Amino acid sequence: MKDLKTRFTDYIHRLQDHICREIEVCDGQTLFRQDSWEREGGGGGRTRVIEKGRVFEKGGVNCSVVHGELPELIRKRFGVEQGWFFAAGISLVLHPENPMVPTVHANYRMFELYDEEGGERKDVWFGGGADMTPYYLFEEDAAHFHRTHKQACDSIDPKLYPEFKKECDAYFHNTHRGEGRGIGGIFYDYKRDETGTGEQLETWFSLARACGDAFTRAYIPVADKRKNLSYTDAQRYWQEIRRGRYVEFNLVHDRGTLFGLKTNGRVESILMSLPPRVRWDYGFEPESGSEEEKLIGVLRQPRSWV
Amino acid sequence: MKDLKTRFTDYIHRLQDHICREIEVCDGQTLFRQDSWEREGGGGGRTRVIEKGRVFEKGGVNCSVVHGELPELIRKRFGVEQGWFFAAGISLVLHPENPMVPTVHANYRMFELYDEEGGERKDVWFGGGADMTPYYLFEEDAAHFHRTHKQACDSIDPKLYPEFKKECDAYFHNTHRGEGRGIGGIFYDYKRDETGTGEQLETWFSLARACGDAFTRAYIPVADKRKNLSYTDAQRYWQEIRRGRYVEFNLVHDRGTLFGLKTNGRVESILMSLPPRVRWDYGFEPESGSEEEKLIGVLRQPRSWV
Repeated sequence: MKDLKTRFTDYIHRLQDHICREIEVCDGQTLFRQDSWEREGGGGGRTRVIEKGRVFEKGGVNCSVVHGELPELIRKRFGVEQGWFFAAGISLVLHPENPMVPTVHANYRMFELYDEEGGERKDVWFGGGADMTPYYLFEEDAAHFHRTHKQACDSIDPKLYPEFKKECDAYFHNTHRGEGRGIGGIFYDYKRDETGTGEQLETWFSLARACGDAFTRAYIPVADKRKNLSYTDAQRYWQEIRRGRYVEFNLVHDRGTLFGLKTNGRVESILMSLPPRVRWDYGFEPESGSEEEKLIGVLRQPRSWV
Repeated sequence: MKDLKTRFTDYIHRLQDHICREIEVCDGQTLFRQDSWEREGGGGGRTRVIEKGRVFEKGGVNCSVVHGELPELIRKRFGVEQGWFFAAGISLVLHPENPMVPTVHANYRMFELYDEEGGERKDVWFGGGADMTPYYLFEEDAAHFHRTHKQACDSIDPKLYPEFKKECDAYFHNTHRGEGRGIGGIFYDYKRDETGTGEQLETWFSLARACGDAFTRAYIPVADKRKNLSYTDAQRYWQEIRRGRYVEFNLVHDRGTLFGLKTNGRVESILMSLPPRVRWDYGFEPESGSEEEKLIGVLRQPRSWV
């Protein structure tokens, strides 16, 4: 059997193909274009971007498979003097034009550490998750997204979803605003083999596959249901204000983004997560009793959706 | 004579009045509105905002004068277990609508540390600076802005400008892009009394006054000269793309912004620095030989302007 990192790499590339195809069908007009790139220290990636589509104003579905000497930032964080790493992941963000369609994000990744080039493997872990950021709250959409991911997690272990849901709410939180980035989903990180047999690593790989496969089932029906709804300029304005909060989270709090920017990652691939058009007004407040205010209420006080 | 912090506080409030008046005259249409606010732990501020003006799409000229127990973040940074602080400052950012008019930022501040409430003063320092971010490069504007600040610094000590100019280029740098935020200006921090007599503190206060007073002379003539130039949709597009870089700097690298957000500062006053409308496209590149590319050249390789 092929080794874990080869199988994981094969999987995320297949998943990238699958998701891009489904997104293109949903968009109905615009196709992804691909940028393949190489990393100076080893490895590379394929960034796929859709822009100015009928449904998707901007989006990226990126794979990267990189390896090499550990960047200084990680060496410090793990307190090691030298080391080599392998990291593979798929990361996607989709920003629809219509404010009735939520923005969505997902990421599945694995990481390996070695003592030297081609040397003994010292550590392996998996991380991942998916979360949704609506501009207008349709409760049935939030429930569908959560339920679909719960089923994927349950197929591995019913204990996982409740934990991952909580971690997602805790992680995607704009502490400086006291608000969640969106209505959550699932989030997990540093999933290792605790048994020493490597068996659990197969479980975490299965989890990534189950959740990765669930993505289009969780999101595409939501996008399809809302993409032809009409909206006003004021609703679009609100979407652009809320996209500002998305930028604030990604640039101030998101570990992955900051790690990428501080370790000389490929800037355009990292920042494809930022929305296409954004607005910051001073002291913008939604009207009392409005749909906009209702959304804020849910972001301040995360709910159970299943 | 009143104590230093009272005199500094009086000065920044007078400066705020002066700058707002001059900006209103330059705008010719819209006035600032003021939000006075109080800080839970002690002190408060007056935030003045102009929005959707004829010249200024968004801008803020804010004073804050705060005191209280040291936030945990500073206690850690300075390695002290407890302490009290006083901090006063004026901070301004102006985002013009016309891409021919540069964005501008300035900030003058002082900081005092005490061992306990009402106790002995342990440390005092001043910081400040002003810098300009054009979307299209008019060399004479950059030269005027630098020359005016050089004259202000020279009135205190001719050694200061060359040092502060260099620090400004180093500080306002988007390391992840390999680009300066703009064409620089001056920047200084942690200016203390090295003599033990307190004499140098008077010098740093004089410096803040000289530079603070220079602001309108440095910027308003530039804004007046460019505010009625015509521009195309493509030039506005470019401005919005570049504003994205401004956001990246402020949220990823700016110490003041991150410090404010992480110590429970007043979010709307801190983030008034963010531009009103912003755009992120994937892999946007200016045309070879264009004015836009010429700007990037200067941001990558800071120049001497005097």
